[in-house]
Amino acid sequence: MGPSANGPNMIPIHLPRGFRASAVHAGIRRNKTRLDLALLEADEPRPLAAVFTKSLLLGAHVTVCRESLAQSKGFVRAIVVNAGNANCNTGPKGLEDNRAVAKYTASLLDCEPAEVLFLSTGIIGAQLPMDRIVASLPGLCDGLREDNAETFAKAIMTTDLVHKLVTEDLSGGGRLAGFAKGSGMIHPDMATMFGFLLTDVALEAEPHELLKRVNARSFQRMTIDGDTSPNDTVVLWSTGLAGEAPPDTLEPAVTRVAQELARNIAADGEGATRLVTIRVKGAPSEEAAVLVGRTIGTSPLVKTAIHGRDPNWGRIIAAAARAGVPFDPQRSSLAIGGAVVYRAGLPCPENETAAHEHMLKEFEVIIELDIAAGAASAECWTCDYSADYIRINADYRS
Amino acid sequence: MGPSANGPNMIPIHLPRGFRASAVHAGIRRNKTRLDLALLEADEPRPLAAVFTKSLLLGAHVTVCRESLAQSKGFVRAIVVNAGNANCNTGPKGLEDNRAVAKYTASLLDCEPAEVLFLSTGIIGAQLPMDRIVASLPGLCDGLREDNAETFAKAIMTTDLVHKLVTEDLSGGGRLAGFAKGSGMIHPDMATMFGFLLTDVALEAEPHELLKRVNARSFQRMTIDGDTSPNDTVVLWSTGLAGEAPPDTLEPAVTRVAQELARNIAADGEGATRLVTIRVKGAPSEEAAVLVGRTIGTSPLVKTAIHGRDPNWGRIIAAAARAGVPFDPQRSSLAIGGAVVYRAGLPCPENETAAHEHMLKEFEVIIELDIAAGAASAECWTCDYSADYIRINADYRS
Repeated sequence: MGPSANGPNMIPIHLPRGFRASAVHAGIRRNKTRLDLALLEADEPRPLAAVFTKSLLLGAHVTVCRESLAQSKGFVRAIVVNAGNANCNTGPKGLEDNRAVAKYTASLLDCEPAEVLFLSTGIIGAQLPMDRIVASLPGLCDGLREDNAETFAKAIMTTDLVHKLVTEDLSGGGRLAGFAKGSGMIHPDMATMFGFLLTDVALEAEPHELLKRVNARSFQRMTIDGDTSPNDTVVLWSTGLAGEAPPDTLEPAVTRVAQELARNIAADGEGATRLVTIRVKGAPSEEAAVLVGRTIGTSPLVKTAIHGRDPNWGRIIAAAARAGVPFDPQRSSLAIGGAVVYRAGLPCPENETAAHEHMLKEFEVIIELDIAAGAASAECWTCDYSADYIRINADYRS
Repeated sequence: MGPSANGPNMIPIHLPRGFRASAVHAGIRRNKTRLDLALLEADEPRPLAAVFTKSLLLGAHVTVCRESLAQSKGFVRAIVVNAGNANCNTGPKGLEDNRAVAKYTASLLDCEPAEVLFLSTGIIGAQLPMDRIVASLPGLCDGLREDNAETFAKAIMTTDLVHKLVTEDLSGGGRLAGFAKGSGMIHPDMATMFGFLLTDVALEAEPHELLKRVNARSFQRMTIDGDTSPNDTVVLWSTGLAGEAPPDTLEPAVTRVAQELARNIAADGEGATRLVTIRVKGAPSEEAAVLVGRTIGTSPLVKTAIHGRDPNWGRIIAAAARAGVPFDPQRSSLAIGGAVVYRAGLPCPENETAAHEHMLKEFEVIIELDIAAGAASAECWTCDYSADYIRINADYRS
């Protein structure tokens, strides 16, 4: 059974066993109809692995969460998330505010402050409206429910046009639920990507290594504009209430859910009109395939060509050829939507119409490049660049 | 005396002593009023250093020119340049065609074929119209004149809106003339950047090392869209007829001319409305400063913010923070047009209006970032991203 993304339906989605969620409008965002403060809770402190942004610029939560996870040895009871304000570039007060919210939430849930993580996303350079957040926390805790998955997914959105929620039932009876947010790095000045991977299946002894492998094959393979946010955070968290998963089933399932979330983020890229899947084959290593795919997926020239539905093999080959991976463009081949547009150093103009039709008709444009330099492959995801991307990002902050 | 860019004037610009230039419309471009085949000639085979694209995808001229320079030991009599067709992805015929043009030109100028370089820029994946080029070569050779600098600069343009020609008179009587072309990598599918640095001052024994240093401080510090073309070529060529330059004057002068050309290319970026100068100070090394500056200059978020005249310190700091250079954003400061908008980890909202005014009024936006991690500095150049960039690059090839 593959992962299923959440479409419009009437049946509330239940979280994996032991998890509950809640969300309220605390007044962090101006829009009063939008949820902006959310809570995920486990039945008791449960093992959690986290990976944070590699940027040198860090949101306050990155610093405090690392401290808390070290202190709690990775056992987490609750995660509070706010949207609308990233608590980044807020100095020592930003750190204090983060700790205060964790501490107050811990008192409401009757656990240790280090067992509560508080994550922030939204604009940078502004202090959190602490009075409103603190005033909303009791109601937030009171609202915890097992079937609030969709509410949580909606509450963490910032510039996202759609919420990102993917679930998968495991063969042994366990469940996975994944949430993500992010649609571009910063609008107008925003710290962005979150991924939450929840399961009731017991994690292996070293969940951090598992999460690193999953992250490398999912969120790390998606790009909107090549920028990295100071707040990017991905967590893997398990109650273990469903026991062990059958051998060799957990990691592939978590990877599928995370990849589907990553594809959802790419598809919701700012101004995007196409999801672009880039498959690189024949690479000397998986890392090399990723490097080539990511270079193609970051090229403004490739992304604008896709927006123009232009099967522009030249820009794709040229991007690959500067990725730093040794290969011979004269031995490579390239297909768009299955139509081979470049082979052995020469274009195949007879197939350009078929490639153009694929780009016109399909929301997901599929680019397959074989660099004939090995046996490894990888898939990356991006979106096209439209004039709307410029409009969204060039508006003067008001 | 600093370098002077060529503005509208009535006085023909003379090349450095010993050089002559010529250009014709050969019919490579469809537009019959545009020159598309050009020639630079030295009085006899003269020392030339060249740097070529680092892409794995190579235009035919890169392969053949390397062979010719090896054979001629770097002594070059003439350079033929065509615009409108890059002779890239053209297979073995592309190599043959390049050699045939060099050979015929050599016979017309009475020199060795290896002493003639033939450079191509324009669309990729199409064979050269050899009949038209060959038919035009005698007239091209007949038209050589010492005062044809501007004609040559115009003939090598592709998507450039303005020609790029910079001259400087050296204190000892020698002269420098620099030409460049390039405004984005590929439109619609184009292999792009050329730089020609000509002088009558004698070069040092190892001109290649001199050119590498100059290139690293000029063309390598400019970015339009982060893409690298398969045909990028920069040459430094000297007749030596003005003798030696005064000590320590040649390299700074060549660097100034090359930097002015690089700034002209950035200012003429596709859809650009602003030239952006990024000065990074306080870096652990010059290379580190360049890495930070180039990461800022390649960020679509920074470039769209500049288009919106938005003094968005967050995007600039965030781009710097992911450049791979260790520094502490909490100790850094950032000024736009001299107005400090970020200092010690916190924004300075009181100066944002001044920065915004600078961006509104000046064509050249100046960003100064001090990362407080050393004593080195560097300057990079880029342009803003406008919706016109998308429009120019997303048009389906017709």
